[in-house]
Amino acid sequence: MRELLGGKGANLAEMCRLGLPVPPGFTIATSVCEAFYKNGGRIPDDVVAQIEKGLARLEQVMGRRFGDPEDPLLVSVRSGAAVSMPGMMDSVLNLGLNSETAGGLARLSGDRRFALDAQRRLTQMFGDVVLGIEHERFENALGRIKASRGATLDTDLDEEALGEVVDRFRAEVRAATGDEFPDDPRQQLRLAIEAVFASWNGTRAKRYRELNDIHGLLGTAVNVQAMVFGNLGAGSGTGVCFTRDPSTGENVLYGEYLVNAQGEDVVAGIRTPEPLERLERDLPDCHGRLLEIKGILERHYRDMQDLEFTVQGGKLYMLQTRTGTRTAQAAVRIAVEMVDEGLIDESEALRRVEPEQLDRLLHPTFDPQAERDVLATGLPASPGAVTGRMVFTAEDAEIWAGRGEKVVLVRNETSPEDIGGMHAAEGILTARGGMTSHAAVVARGMGKCCVAGCSALYVDAHGKTMDVGGAQLGEGDWISLDGSTGEVMRGRVATAHASLGDHFERLMKMADAKRRLGVRTNADTPADAALARSFGAEGIGLCRTEHMFFEETRIQAVREMILAETAPQRHAALQKLLPAQREDFRGIFEAMDGLPVTVRLLDPPLHEFLPHDDAAREAVAAALDVPVERVRRRCRELQEFNPMLGHRGCRLGVTHPEIYEMQARAIGEAACDAAAAGIQVVAEVMVPLVGTVTELDFCTERLRAVLDEVLEERSTKLTFLIGTMIEVPRAALVAEELARTAEFFSFGTNDLTQMTFGYSRDDSGSFLPEYVDRGVLPNDPFQSLDTAGVGRLVRMACEEGRRARPDLKLGICGEHGGDPRSIRFCHEVGLDYVSCSPYRVPVARLAAARAALE
Amino acid sequence: MRELLGGKGANLAEMCRLGLPVPPGFTIATSVCEAFYKNGGRIPDDVVAQIEKGLARLEQVMGRRFGDPEDPLLVSVRSGAAVSMPGMMDSVLNLGLNSETAGGLARLSGDRRFALDAQRRLTQMFGDVVLGIEHERFENALGRIKASRGATLDTDLDEEALGEVVDRFRAEVRAATGDEFPDDPRQQLRLAIEAVFASWNGTRAKRYRELNDIHGLLGTAVNVQAMVFGNLGAGSGTGVCFTRDPSTGENVLYGEYLVNAQGEDVVAGIRTPEPLERLERDLPDCHGRLLEIKGILERHYRDMQDLEFTVQGGKLYMLQTRTGTRTAQAAVRIAVEMVDEGLIDESEALRRVEPEQLDRLLHPTFDPQAERDVLATGLPASPGAVTGRMVFTAEDAEIWAGRGEKVVLVRNETSPEDIGGMHAAEGILTARGGMTSHAAVVARGMGKCCVAGCSALYVDAHGKTMDVGGAQLGEGDWISLDGSTGEVMRGRVATAHASLGDHFERLMKMADAKRRLGVRTNADTPADAALARSFGAEGIGLCRTEHMFFEETRIQAVREMILAETAPQRHAALQKLLPAQREDFRGIFEAMDGLPVTVRLLDPPLHEFLPHDDAAREAVAAALDVPVERVRRRCRELQEFNPMLGHRGCRLGVTHPEIYEMQARAIGEAACDAAAAGIQVVAEVMVPLVGTVTELDFCTERLRAVLDEVLEERSTKLTFLIGTMIEVPRAALVAEELARTAEFFSFGTNDLTQMTFGYSRDDSGSFLPEYVDRGVLPNDPFQSLDTAGVGRLVRMACEEGRRARPDLKLGICGEHGGDPRSIRFCHEVGLDYVSCSPYRVPVARLAAARAALE
Repeated sequence: MRELLGGKGANLAEMCRLGLPVPPGFTIATSVCEAFYKNGGRIPDDVVAQIEKGLARLEQVMGRRFGDPEDPLLVSVRSGAAVSMPGMMDSVLNLGLNSETAGGLARLSGDRRFALDAQRRLTQMFGDVVLGIEHERFENALGRIKASRGATLDTDLDEEALGEVVDRFRAEVRAATGDEFPDDPRQQLRLAIEAVFASWNGTRAKRYRELNDIHGLLGTAVNVQAMVFGNLGAGSGTGVCFTRDPSTGENVLYGEYLVNAQGEDVVAGIRTPEPLERLERDLPDCHGRLLEIKGILERHYRDMQDLEFTVQGGKLYMLQTRTGTRTAQAAVRIAVEMVDEGLIDESEALRRVEPEQLDRLLHPTFDPQAERDVLATGLPASPGAVTGRMVFTAEDAEIWAGRGEKVVLVRNETSPEDIGGMHAAEGILTARGGMTSHAAVVARGMGKCCVAGCSALYVDAHGKTMDVGGAQLGEGDWISLDGSTGEVMRGRVATAHASLGDHFERLMKMADAKRRLGVRTNADTPADAALARSFGAEGIGLCRTEHMFFEETRIQAVREMILAETAPQRHAALQKLLPAQREDFRGIFEAMDGLPVTVRLLDPPLHEFLPHDDAAREAVAAALDVPVERVRRRCRELQEFNPMLGHRGCRLGVTHPEIYEMQARAIGEAACDAAAAGIQVVAEVMVPLVGTVTELDFCTERLRAVLDEVLEERSTKLTFLIGTMIEVPRAALVAEELARTAEFFSFGTNDLTQMTFGYSRDDSGSFLPEYVDRGVLPNDPFQSLDTAGVGRLVRMACEEGRRARPDLKLGICGEHGGDPRSIRFCHEVGLDYVSCSPYRVPVARLAAARAALE
Repeated sequence: MRELLGGKGANLAEMCRLGLPVPPGFTIATSVCEAFYKNGGRIPDDVVAQIEKGLARLEQVMGRRFGDPEDPLLVSVRSGAAVSMPGMMDSVLNLGLNSETAGGLARLSGDRRFALDAQRRLTQMFGDVVLGIEHERFENALGRIKASRGATLDTDLDEEALGEVVDRFRAEVRAATGDEFPDDPRQQLRLAIEAVFASWNGTRAKRYRELNDIHGLLGTAVNVQAMVFGNLGAGSGTGVCFTRDPSTGENVLYGEYLVNAQGEDVVAGIRTPEPLERLERDLPDCHGRLLEIKGILERHYRDMQDLEFTVQGGKLYMLQTRTGTRTAQAAVRIAVEMVDEGLIDESEALRRVEPEQLDRLLHPTFDPQAERDVLATGLPASPGAVTGRMVFTAEDAEIWAGRGEKVVLVRNETSPEDIGGMHAAEGILTARGGMTSHAAVVARGMGKCCVAGCSALYVDAHGKTMDVGGAQLGEGDWISLDGSTGEVMRGRVATAHASLGDHFERLMKMADAKRRLGVRTNADTPADAALARSFGAEGIGLCRTEHMFFEETRIQAVREMILAETAPQRHAALQKLLPAQREDFRGIFEAMDGLPVTVRLLDPPLHEFLPHDDAAREAVAAALDVPVERVRRRCRELQEFNPMLGHRGCRLGVTHPEIYEMQARAIGEAACDAAAAGIQVVAEVMVPLVGTVTELDFCTERLRAVLDEVLEERSTKLTFLIGTMIEVPRAALVAEELARTAEFFSFGTNDLTQMTFGYSRDDSGSFLPEYVDRGVLPNDPFQSLDTAGVGRLVRMACEEGRRARPDLKLGICGEHGGDPRSIRFCHEVGLDYVSCSPYRVPVARLAAARAALE
């Protein structure tokens, strides 16, 4: 009945059905909200008649009449849509009060102060919500009276003072609207209901629905309930609580209680609520009853609940129950413990934890209590929470880190030359580039915090300063980055690290039991490989070899190779790289003993390995003993307008076959060495950027020849699969042909997205955020796979590839391999595995399980 | 029988069948060539027996015996594959001669000198072709004897001297091989046949087949024929002729004749042949017979023939007939006249002219007789033949051209800033960039000669010099460019311009009658539009608006718009552009009166409109009265790593809607103005770079609103179609969705190729040529549409687009729209039209007709 009654209304009805103490009332359905708008913003007459009937029934149940000066019934009006929109719409309490009925209420309760308190609350809320008077006017008026009487809290005001407040408030209404406060209870009710309906299309609520992607609802329902009063003295009060600790998930009642107050006092923060122990001490029976209700509701809803209650004269009333929000840690613990308690099954437990939440669990986070001086917000490119001193070049990062400083590397953008500095830094901040810019991709791979594309920054790397919103920061200044929100903060912000614990491990086991998709990792070093394995990775889906080329000791040989003028020179330079590459692969094979390792051959264009400025070029020329003019000339020759679409990947493999041949030899020899040491090697060689079957055939033939040669030399028996990335749209279009040669496909959805959309991941920051904001795109396609376009190519390639080779192994190694929504798509199209950065492995395991459950 | 007998053998047999005078002989089939290779390079024994039988029959017909010392039969051995491979394989004449049979021949002919001449020819040819002796050895020997006797021509040598030549030649054979010249006629024949078979797999022949894409042949056939002698004195001779003039196509016998000579003398160029008039004068009967044979062969083959003949003692013998090659001009005239003569029908006439040939007809060409000092060869990016003085900046081009100089603009690469200079120059030469680089595309659009990507050049724009192969040229030096071959030549080379004439017009009419595809043009100016219309364009398929932005008077306003910091500033700058754009469109609508004009809205990224160097930035800042730092900063902000995948096309339309709105207003107002002046306007507005339906909807909605507003203001009734480019792969993948909004699709196959392959057209010069050479790609996909990949997307988009909107108009406006092979594909997939640069329009008309005929 949620659709029609709204969440609150349905839950109230549900609690009634369970026999819980709920103040009597009725709900006006969401369909009436629609009718209200169709009727030009007025409740249609037939509905008015129905409300009248509901009110009559309520009067009968309560034995009081609405507007009766002797024994008045008061009601509350609360909004409640089918989807929870906390704080977005309005409520009005104490409806039915005027000077006459207030008198009756005073007589009846024997507490005139209470009646006046209720009346001033009504006047203020009604004034604010229904009449649209700025609430500051009431607060200022109240403040002035409190000041004149030397009162601190509202409760310090006596009867007389409250009387003055009511008069003052009514005068404010008169001044603001030119009319008297409406004293007719029926008019109050009707206006309040209309105000709630109107708030459905208020700016605030509309924006909330937009941001939270809430569509297709009819409107809000309205709950009209008999008032119960928490402000009837010390035996009364109001509270909110969770049936379990929403931070840790511990199975205890967790909440707050405010003596002698109505609900809005808790929200307004005028008085500080006390822990529930206060209720336990003051009114143990009530507390006991609440514990009992906790059990009933958890058994009924089979989930942790967020409750609102009021105690009136020692009697407990439940005003609301809804599913409670919780931290990642709590979500995991609650899900697992509810399985143990028999409340839910394992599938349900998996549905209870959002995969995205796990990411936060794995990275340190800022202490939520710590103060944040946010300078600017960029893209949350790689999660984590770090604090460090600013440096502006990769070199400085290494120097400062070398002397034990924690640094944050600040760049306009990073390039492969910066790898060393990125490693040395705690976190990376860039002014340009998107979620899959170099900085973002590398940082995620390293599990390093990164805020990218923070366009409010102006970085002067030369002057070593950063301008942001009028302020200027310089080298050595402390900043903090929140990689989960994209916030850049001035100074040091304290961090906290949640421990994973046993519940996490158990949830992961449940996920593994359900999922069909394999989960591998993208890892380039033995350390990353080991880390990912500890997170449950079942292999390496993408081992990039270019990062290995950048290490201090090797880059020289790489440059020698690029500057070589003859084939023998080039060959000699490659021979210098061979032992280093062999050791790299050997380390990775060891870390992944028994699990598959997919090695991608060299991918980036050669100019990435040459220095960009002239001083560095002179240094290279000197180190290699070649004329600097040759270095300059080669840089010029290799320069590209659109490097993303340039001479890279297997295009290098075709024009410079000796590079891939060296890499194949390194892989082959490393595999033989590892096998000889008892390691079980499962190696897969992957050719990048293939667009035509001829490219793949050309490379495969040469790779196979070298691998066979090595196996022959070492008298070793090993099987190497050779396959291809599918990252150029054309590859997907000719997949059937490719699959005749390729033994596996790995979808490189970063590049595939770039080329299918024609978006450069490094440049799209100039329009993508606006595209997402304006709804031109539902989300950043570099984060969540575009199923209609890119996904269509993936699906075609899967179907047509398997047509040519039924046992074709299919995987994904783009950033999407760690995105839950994309993983669901991968499951649907029948991939064998996804591969993602080490820290995303648990996310992927859970997402894969949830995909299988759907 | 071509497959089995080879071209020459089949035609000889055919001529026999027609009763023409062919020296008797027999053909050894191509299948024997295959058997020869299987048998390890020797003729199998059963074939030897068959050759013996053939020889016996030949002896019987001729009444002479092979090797008979009294009355010897001599034979020739000639190669002839199924496909003509001129000059690639070998022939040997005069087989059967030795000292004995030479004596018999001398007696029989009463001409000892002739017999010795035949023998020295055999010795030399056999030595060269069969024994593999360098032919210089023979030439040197002959030269020495001629020198010692004071002879200039071979015919100056007397009997005695020729005897010495024969002896000397036989001594050379002995010296080179260690063996005597084989005097056994049967051994001579067998070795000669084997040598011809062997030449099939010689390096030269294999390379020729590779280059010309000739596959799947069995081998060459061998024609053994009784010798007839053109060297039997003044009543004998040899000649070659065409049945029509191969340069002009005129219907006259056109050829050369050499008195007292054998065929190889013509080829070797030792003596200069005379026009056929010599034959007519010397032997009018022979000449008459030749004319008669011309008629018989043309009626039989229904095409112009290339003939070889020999006259022996006043009797004519036909040695060969084959289809003759011809110039473009001749091809057109011959095809049209043969229709008039009833030899072929119109469809056949269209098949007789290669569309690509027409291109050469439309552009001036270098005088084929002129000498060429070729410095380097680049890509033939835009046809034409120009001569001019070198300038190194666009500015200089304009200055020099302004004072009446013809200039060639030499750049490393061009950018949109260079447009003015490109216009001013006769031709453009770049050191970098491919067939669809900026220089190439713009030059083709302008119909201007361009050689692009000439990587042998080193251009120093600053120093105003160009280094090439050790030489250095500077500003003002004369060079010549051949845009059809890519040759860059030193100095001035004379040019010639063929007139199109009536035959051309008639062929075009025939083509128009057959084709289904419409042919439009890509034109940005009224002048281009008028030119294209004169070539038969039926509308404009692509009118780019950005070139208009670069004009001197407008670029300032464009820059003002880009540098604007507020929306009103930006709007004010755009208002300055509006009148100019309106005039542009008005001019184009006038030129295209009654024909459709598709206007593409602004496409390039904004940074293309800002200057690249600091001096120019300072000038801009001064001109616009803004701080230079703002200009620098904006340049920095707009800078992109991969501009091809950047913030351009409709992405600008979405983030800066005011630009497209201004353009829509300019189009609308221009259309109304033109309509008011009696022009029939058919305007189509095209949104570039669309990838999602939301982008298209966003732009279409705003464009429609502005257009409607203008029509309302002007009280004019006009219909504007709004459609989209399909140039981003994703657009093709969601075509069905797009077609619900778009009223037409125009395939932008340049960008679609870039993104589908992941090749930057500006950078692919570093590997594409190698790819084509190595056969990784069958051809440059920017020239000829890749049907398997890019074409598959086009096909999908056509089918799915028409599913959503059955009357969706489909066209292509990429460079492929002018490529015959791609046009065939466009016809197949059911496009409505192709659009190409003005000079390609006739090519497209013919190609479209040929596609319809297939």
